[in-house]
Amino acid sequence: MSLRPDGSKWPVAILGATGAVGQTFVRLLEDHPWFEIAELCASERSAGKSYVDAAHWLEGAMPAAVRDLRVLPCDPSSVRSPIVFSALDAATAHDVEPAFAHAGRMVLSNAKSYRMDPDVPLVVPDVNPAHLDLVPGQRESRGWTGAIITNANFAAAVAAMALGPLHAAFGVRTIFAATMQATSGAGYPGVASLDILSNVIPYIADEEPKIEAELRKILGTRDGSRVIEAPIAVSTHANRVPVEHGHTVCMSIGFEKKPSAADVDELLRSWRGEAEVRGMPSAPERPIVMSDRPDRPQPRRDVNTGKGMSAVVGRVRPDPVLDVRLVVLGHNVVLGAAGASVLNAELLASRGVLAGPAHAR
Amino acid sequence: MSLRPDGSKWPVAILGATGAVGQTFVRLLEDHPWFEIAELCASERSAGKSYVDAAHWLEGAMPAAVRDLRVLPCDPSSVRSPIVFSALDAATAHDVEPAFAHAGRMVLSNAKSYRMDPDVPLVVPDVNPAHLDLVPGQRESRGWTGAIITNANFAAAVAAMALGPLHAAFGVRTIFAATMQATSGAGYPGVASLDILSNVIPYIADEEPKIEAELRKILGTRDGSRVIEAPIAVSTHANRVPVEHGHTVCMSIGFEKKPSAADVDELLRSWRGEAEVRGMPSAPERPIVMSDRPDRPQPRRDVNTGKGMSAVVGRVRPDPVLDVRLVVLGHNVVLGAAGASVLNAELLASRGVLAGPAHAR
Amino acid sequence: MSLRPDGSKWPVAILGATGAVGQTFVRLLEDHPWFEIAELCASERSAGKSYVDAAHWLEGAMPAAVRDLRVLPCDPSSVRSPIVFSALDAATAHDVEPAFAHAGRMVLSNAKSYRMDPDVPLVVPDVNPAHLDLVPGQRESRGWTGAIITNANFAAAVAAMALGPLHAAFGVRTIFAATMQATSGAGYPGVASLDILSNVIPYIADEEPKIEAELRKILGTRDGSRVIEAPIAVSTHANRVPVEHGHTVCMSIGFEKKPSAADVDELLRSWRGEAEVRGMPSAPERPIVMSDRPDRPQPRRDVNTGKGMSAVVGRVRPDPVLDVRLVVLGHNVVLGAAGASVLNAELLASRGVLAGPAHAR
Amino acid sequence: MSLRPDGSKWPVAILGATGAVGQTFVRLLEDHPWFEIAELCASERSAGKSYVDAAHWLEGAMPAAVRDLRVLPCDPSSVRSPIVFSALDAATAHDVEPAFAHAGRMVLSNAKSYRMDPDVPLVVPDVNPAHLDLVPGQRESRGWTGAIITNANFAAAVAAMALGPLHAAFGVRTIFAATMQATSGAGYPGVASLDILSNVIPYIADEEPKIEAELRKILGTRDGSRVIEAPIAVSTHANRVPVEHGHTVCMSIGFEKKPSAADVDELLRSWRGEAEVRGMPSAPERPIVMSDRPDRPQPRRDVNTGKGMSAVVGRVRPDPVLDVRLVVLGHNVVLGAAGASVLNAELLASRGVLAGPAHAR
Repeated sequence: MSLRPDGSKWPVAILGATGAVGQTFVRLLEDHPWFEIAELCASERSAGKSYVDAAHWLEGAMPAAVRDLRVLPCDPSSVRSPIVFSALDAATAHDVEPAFAHAGRMVLSNAKSYRMDPDVPLVVPDVNPAHLDLVPGQRESRGWTGAIITNANFAAAVAAMALGPLHAAFGVRTIFAATMQATSGAGYPGVASLDILSNVIPYIADEEPKIEAELRKILGTRDGSRVIEAPIAVSTHANRVPVEHGHTVCMSIGFEKKPSAADVDELLRSWRGEAEVRGMPSAPERPIVMSDRPDRPQPRRDVNTGKGMSAVVGRVRPDPVLDVRLVVLGHNVVLGAAGASVLNAELLASRGVLAGPAHAR
Repeated sequence: MSLRPDGSKWPVAILGATGAVGQTFVRLLEDHPWFEIAELCASERSAGKSYVDAAHWLEGAMPAAVRDLRVLPCDPSSVRSPIVFSALDAATAHDVEPAFAHAGRMVLSNAKSYRMDPDVPLVVPDVNPAHLDLVPGQRESRGWTGAIITNANFAAAVAAMALGPLHAAFGVRTIFAATMQATSGAGYPGVASLDILSNVIPYIADEEPKIEAELRKILGTRDGSRVIEAPIAVSTHANRVPVEHGHTVCMSIGFEKKPSAADVDELLRSWRGEAEVRGMPSAPERPIVMSDRPDRPQPRRDVNTGKGMSAVVGRVRPDPVLDVRLVVLGHNVVLGAAGASVLNAELLASRGVLAGPAHAR
Repeated sequence: MSLRPDGSKWPVAILGATGAVGQTFVRLLEDHPWFEIAELCASERSAGKSYVDAAHWLEGAMPAAVRDLRVLPCDPSSVRSPIVFSALDAATAHDVEPAFAHAGRMVLSNAKSYRMDPDVPLVVPDVNPAHLDLVPGQRESRGWTGAIITNANFAAAVAAMALGPLHAAFGVRTIFAATMQATSGAGYPGVASLDILSNVIPYIADEEPKIEAELRKILGTRDGSRVIEAPIAVSTHANRVPVEHGHTVCMSIGFEKKPSAADVDELLRSWRGEAEVRGMPSAPERPIVMSDRPDRPQPRRDVNTGKGMSAVVGRVRPDPVLDVRLVVLGHNVVLGAAGASVLNAELLASRGVLAGPAHAR
Repeated sequence: MSLRPDGSKWPVAILGATGAVGQTFVRLLEDHPWFEIAELCASERSAGKSYVDAAHWLEGAMPAAVRDLRVLPCDPSSVRSPIVFSALDAATAHDVEPAFAHAGRMVLSNAKSYRMDPDVPLVVPDVNPAHLDLVPGQRESRGWTGAIITNANFAAAVAAMALGPLHAAFGVRTIFAATMQATSGAGYPGVASLDILSNVIPYIADEEPKIEAELRKILGTRDGSRVIEAPIAVSTHANRVPVEHGHTVCMSIGFEKKPSAADVDELLRSWRGEAEVRGMPSAPERPIVMSDRPDRPQPRRDVNTGKGMSAVVGRVRPDPVLDVRLVVLGHNVVLGAAGASVLNAELLASRGVLAGPAHAR
């Protein structure tokens, strides 16, 4: 049972609530069994307006419960919720997130600002929930009563879903990855239509080194209060394509234990994720769903598998240079961003990490 | 001077003239200085109709000179032209092209049927025009007075443009290539809009082995009457994207001589193609054009560089696993199909290969 | 209660089950409270195969319950279900649907073949369910024990959703309608990607006269065993746009009673559809949902309103020539096709029309 | 002969040179026989940079001649050219354009700021060049030695191309127009890809009243120093569609003289535009090109007809409510913006209006 000690839902705040990822948090937290949106925060420009006036709502209809919430500034003194989901851009997150952590809040962050700090968990929940154990050390070393827990970059998160179980079983050594990333990965307004209609942009600023480093950290091992990155050579090619949601990643993988394509296929097909994660409210029935058709996964058709929380894998086949090739697809804004944060918060709640004295208010 | 001995233009026929590649031949040969469209051939269903009635014309306005040409069957007894451009599908080409070659015609083929036969030239004109020297051996061994000369698969042709000079200079040993291919590569009607709008299809039937084998042959060396494939390990990931024209290929390349990214950049920047090719009517001023912006080449913006006959290369940078990464883009229907055939025919004309007794009619 | 007299679900067949509309029937009838897919029928080419092998499944994952159903030919002698949903093309429907009706089946048809016959109901369920009363006369005049009940053309159905209540209240006299229709309206494979990527096709064969005539019939009045068309002048401009699902219709409307834009807005806002329809399993909570934002409805964002069964109306404003302008959007494959058929069948079931001796088998 | 009195080309400046329309001016004026780009002006932010650094160049390669031009502020004291093409947004144009006109420059404006002023010519060059005669009166009443000459709104310009000759011949009385407008009409970055991929936006802010008023002015008659608007009732529905370039307009038209569809077709087919315009360097061979296929014009396929300066008309057919329906397509950034400005400047140059004392510098 992961409600508050008094049986009520945890009040949560969303920082950067008007943007594309912030809106996804709002949708995912509507009717959540453990969490309740109490506060929506955004930039100065939006603060004071009602949410319906402040946000250019992007998909479907805005949930009624949040329409009239007054938008607050992103400042711990204005926000009471003990759990804070951050959809802030990196520049803003750099100062705001530590302020909240210092003020005793659990910050579930989508920004890149602290992802690569060795004492900050960078968690793809189905893959490396054990990295959440960095929280006590982080608190100690930083003198915080809260903490920052980060998500991976969209594309790294999608790739990690397939790589996690494979690394555990066979030892990943080398990765070639070419991504075809949806425009929602660039936020809103993000990519101009004149740049992407009937086009491909073979470049996303800073994306390739980010994916390469984050994969090594996610697949790394916790050593006390820090993570030792996995010794994997990664080469990426990041591309933007005219797709709304869903990052597709083509990978060739070299392994220490030299599994066959059939071995890889079988392992992924039977994988159910970490036991701790199963049963969380946002955990999909299967973290990895295998496509049986040769021309899948496809973003428009498969992106909502498992309500956007499953990675879909297909085309597992031998690689002429390394060992195995495959394609993995995931919902960049759900699995690769807001959904992962929510699932991380659920793990913290079920571990009782949220119930400590820091939140005795 | 490459006109016929009597100073007139060479009459040419187009097989499969109503399809997408066939229409590109028609556009490229309008106002050609050496060739003149004399005959348009297509399936039984179209034969006998005027071209304007038989073809669902795809781009701009149909050239006036061909509108009223009567479509002929694809049969050497109905066709008089000594030069035959074939845009036939593989199944039809399998029987039809040898019939024309046997009847003394030079068949410039876009079909895959004979590409991998060791005595059939598979020529990307800026890269391996020397393979045209296979023609005499082919004639001898097959008892033909004509010949079949093939183009590469669209994507292989684009990749080969960058790989050709690099292989000559540094010795390519390993290639990872992820392609993002335009829908025009599938012909017309080809890819259904419901399959590709706002989507990516991470699979093109038979494409990956074809690219891998063709690259080895194009980069191979002629040994008498056959080609010895280059010993290169190639891993490809072929994808279809919602782009009209232009195949984009992301490549990581390993070399024998371990050049730096700067070496590769410099070599490509200074490369002008084979001397024999320069000055041909369809040869672009530069076979490779280097992008100076980090987010280029892009298909919609760069596909018509050099009237569609130049490959555009960008993002030359070190590779964390192999040696160098880069992106290359080319027009799949021009550089990667009809344009290459026309340029091959120009090379044959300028060598005088077309002027032999076979065409003394 | 609308199950069979014995309390079991009605077995239903789908004709043309492998196509785009047929697949939508399969999805809509999964877990239906009154109907159960018993039989899937398609062309000779597919008959005998399992459904998973015969159908190129277009959206999400195929429901497990139908994967292994053996596809049957479209012949009443092979099919036992008393209710038959037809997604056949017009040419096939012309002969097949009467055969089923003659054999005592209730045929819910999406084909245009019999829509304009005066004794055949052409029903947009929220608008003119009273036209279902044509069934007895149709049976009598044709000597059938079953019947044919038709849906409107996709775009006509969407337009009729807004026009129905307005005609009842204010008397529609003149309509200008420009449609922007999704590619799924052309079935699969349907529109070629080369025809529609980054393009508009300002023409759909036979569409404009069809919409014009069907609107007059849907808004017409039943007079005994036939429908008298409404005396409305309709001018349409039908366009295909690069949208997956959702037909958008811009309309200028002239009325007999000259309502203001505010009158029209208020009427549509308060309309709840025919009482008989409310409470049917497939009836949306509101048949018309009003957009409050000036730039909506939009197909990608609003098409699934009411699970695809609601029409979304926006931009109600005065018209400088006629009386009122507005935009209406609906899901062409659900509201405008399969969903309407299912809702019509529910109406028949709840009226007890399905329970007659014709089905006493 | 329309060069300067000394035989040299006219130096011209472009205001707002870094935006989408500004870039189109640069492309159209490359190699112009009478004009030469002397100065490029943009906002404070860009001023002082070289053009290649200041502009995010959108199509093909930037002309070499302008790459290193230093961008100037939009201020007449910094600019010497007597002819000024303005691609400024309306807010900036409001103050800047009169300053240039006051300083003796001929301002060819694409902004809406002064279009509807009765003494300011609003000219679609092939349709109402006679409105250029407002210039002397404008100078007199405003005390300027230069003048402002405006272009129509993109969509109004496209519609006017078809309406102009029809109004002259048959007297247009009523228009229904539904537009499907390309994203380049919103400038760069303009429409966000998340708003338009696989979508339609049935609203463009302020667009409908603008089109309606501008059409009445363009089709109006000059009466001394002002234009009397034509008494035409116009109802428009403006939509944004996922198309790069090319506005498509579906129109139903009512006429005073009740021509048949055949009359309209014949008139448009034979129309060659105003005699004065023919022979200008930017005038297309035919201002209107008729499509002979039923499914044309289409933006992607027909937008570059006449180098983007021809309107393409198709589907001329009877209208069930008014008299005639048709579809007209034009290049919004060329015919509907920069190209029209250049053609207007050519008319002024050929009339000798540019050669007056105001430019004796």
